[in-house]
Amino acid sequence: MSRYWNSLVAKLDPYVPGEQPRIQNLIKLNTNEHPYGPSPKVLEAIKAQTNDSLRLYPDPTALELRQAIGRRFNLVPEQVFVGNGSDEVLAHVFHALLKHDQPVLFPDITYSFYPVYCGLYEIQYKTLPLDAHLKIRVEDYLPSPGDRNVGGIIFPNPNAPTGSAHALGDVERIVAANPDVVVVVDEAYVDFGAQSAVSLIDQYPNLLVVHTLSKSRSLAGLRVGYAMGHPDLIQGLDRVKNSFNSYPLDRLALAGATAAIEDQAHFEATRDAVVRTRGMLTQGLEQLGFEVLPSTANFVFARHPARDGALLASALREKNIIVRHFKKPRIDQYLRITIGTDEQCAKLLEACQSILNGSAVRSFGN
Amino acid sequence: MSRYWNSLVAKLDPYVPGEQPRIQNLIKLNTNEHPYGPSPKVLEAIKAQTNDSLRLYPDPTALELRQAIGRRFNLVPEQVFVGNGSDEVLAHVFHALLKHDQPVLFPDITYSFYPVYCGLYEIQYKTLPLDAHLKIRVEDYLPSPGDRNVGGIIFPNPNAPTGSAHALGDVERIVAANPDVVVVVDEAYVDFGAQSAVSLIDQYPNLLVVHTLSKSRSLAGLRVGYAMGHPDLIQGLDRVKNSFNSYPLDRLALAGATAAIEDQAHFEATRDAVVRTRGMLTQGLEQLGFEVLPSTANFVFARHPARDGALLASALREKNIIVRHFKKPRIDQYLRITIGTDEQCAKLLEACQSILNGSAVRSFGN
Repeated sequence: MSRYWNSLVAKLDPYVPGEQPRIQNLIKLNTNEHPYGPSPKVLEAIKAQTNDSLRLYPDPTALELRQAIGRRFNLVPEQVFVGNGSDEVLAHVFHALLKHDQPVLFPDITYSFYPVYCGLYEIQYKTLPLDAHLKIRVEDYLPSPGDRNVGGIIFPNPNAPTGSAHALGDVERIVAANPDVVVVVDEAYVDFGAQSAVSLIDQYPNLLVVHTLSKSRSLAGLRVGYAMGHPDLIQGLDRVKNSFNSYPLDRLALAGATAAIEDQAHFEATRDAVVRTRGMLTQGLEQLGFEVLPSTANFVFARHPARDGALLASALREKNIIVRHFKKPRIDQYLRITIGTDEQCAKLLEACQSILNGSAVRSFGN
Repeated sequence: MSRYWNSLVAKLDPYVPGEQPRIQNLIKLNTNEHPYGPSPKVLEAIKAQTNDSLRLYPDPTALELRQAIGRRFNLVPEQVFVGNGSDEVLAHVFHALLKHDQPVLFPDITYSFYPVYCGLYEIQYKTLPLDAHLKIRVEDYLPSPGDRNVGGIIFPNPNAPTGSAHALGDVERIVAANPDVVVVVDEAYVDFGAQSAVSLIDQYPNLLVVHTLSKSRSLAGLRVGYAMGHPDLIQGLDRVKNSFNSYPLDRLALAGATAAIEDQAHFEATRDAVVRTRGMLTQGLEQLGFEVLPSTANFVFARHPARDGALLASALREKNIIVRHFKKPRIDQYLRITIGTDEQCAKLLEACQSILNGSAVRSFGN
């Protein structure tokens, strides 16, 4: 605490991202990065911009990138907003579209940045518990007639860290049942097996769909995300963005992101490889006695009935494999494991087997 | 206006950046970009990172860049905060350190983003008028004993768009006279001839100095800025940043910025070239009858007693030269002209001469 902070700063509870280790030769399965690199066309596009033009400001409207996204999803650029990672996009979404007198609704177990944004912008929120299978209960997001106590909804599909997705029909029910507030569908992981709500945008002026290039486009290191929705929603986001930072995307990020969106073949091939490996990893974990939640993301969420989650995570760390463990009620026995290459996943399975067979780690319960 | 916006969004008055034209072959002297490209070492460093590692998140703490800045200014990394351009850094500064019950003070004529940030974060502010020579009156920022009606100060040195700087002693008087609030010295243009307040940081826990790589480091297209001050101030900024976006700088920006800070020789050589050209341009404009404010920045602020500012700007635009004109009280007769290459400045002078001799443009007064 400092005398120069205001009360807001003093009471913030900032987000803590997964570890980005400096050590080499670790198998890094903790932050849901893609195991394969971005499209070679992305690297070419970036290199083509790495010249004296860096002395000039980028296009503050990111028009070419928004056009490319529009072409990809059958939208006009006025329906597309871009930002410095979907984290920045979501920050502006909370500030511009979810800050009202009534609380924002989201699941109790989900991306832990949502309550942090609420803290930053002093937004009320209400978390709704997942069911016993760690699935979102769609009915909880359908207000009874006359119920006006909702300021907005953020619906992650698939949810993280569970990897569990809902069908498009469920998403549409929520969007249709809440016409007076913005329903944000956070589709960070949608490409790995869920259905996107993008196709509903022209029907529902209260729907905003958020994507990132950090996961399925292999560009966590470039920081680009986007939101798609009715031009009125995009304009609201633009007003906040232009009151915060005129040029959130640098020239290299603009060039690389545009190339990534345009190379559908590389995207599909690498995405399909991750989906295949997810099947093998799930099977392997189950053979070792893990319970694995059905995943439509690039990670699995799994627990072992006979081993403590935190101890398993640290035993893996000792074997140079990092996975994510959350010290949180209801999920502290689970590990969130990013889908790596086949080789990385095989090493993870070997390490798990060795830990489960060994005597070094005992669960609290045994 | 949309039913989904809150009242804040509806009343925002966003910043409007200078035009980034798509037309080639324009002489672009409107947004204070550097006429010379960045260090070749910057381009090398970026290319060395343009590979599969882009699939991985960047270091959320930007440690190497903060270390490089620390080495350059004799500070420890805990005294350095980095962001996605100094615009983002300033946004967090307003939110974390300048938002209090009392108003923030800044000049009436200055960077027009300051009041925009105040709008975004609902911060009260009070503008203090420049004197008749368009200089900041230092005394206005020295509160009388017992005066507690100041929530913070942002002091641009040199100021923009005037280019006018104050000596370090004046800055220190303001910092020392306001120990209870944060004094932000915005030094976006300091390298072109003013004295930095960085040397005062160890003495004054309320001093925060903000720099950008967009001007003197030739990297407007890469979006990197930083703030330096007491670790308590940096920690406050970190708390807000980590509640907004964990990874504001992508891997390429981190690599390029670190190389830029480390290449002092390229920086000094190109900076000195701009300073020399500024002298020639000032002289040339004066010979054409312009009044040119003494500048310590990479632009000059000039007016012609016989020609209307807006008309002059549009006459130059017709000759494919863009300068910046502000439709604002007290400065609407001025042009802000970025220092270009010698050749660009010679063409600007030629164009001015031709306009002044011609009959196409008449000032309103004649």
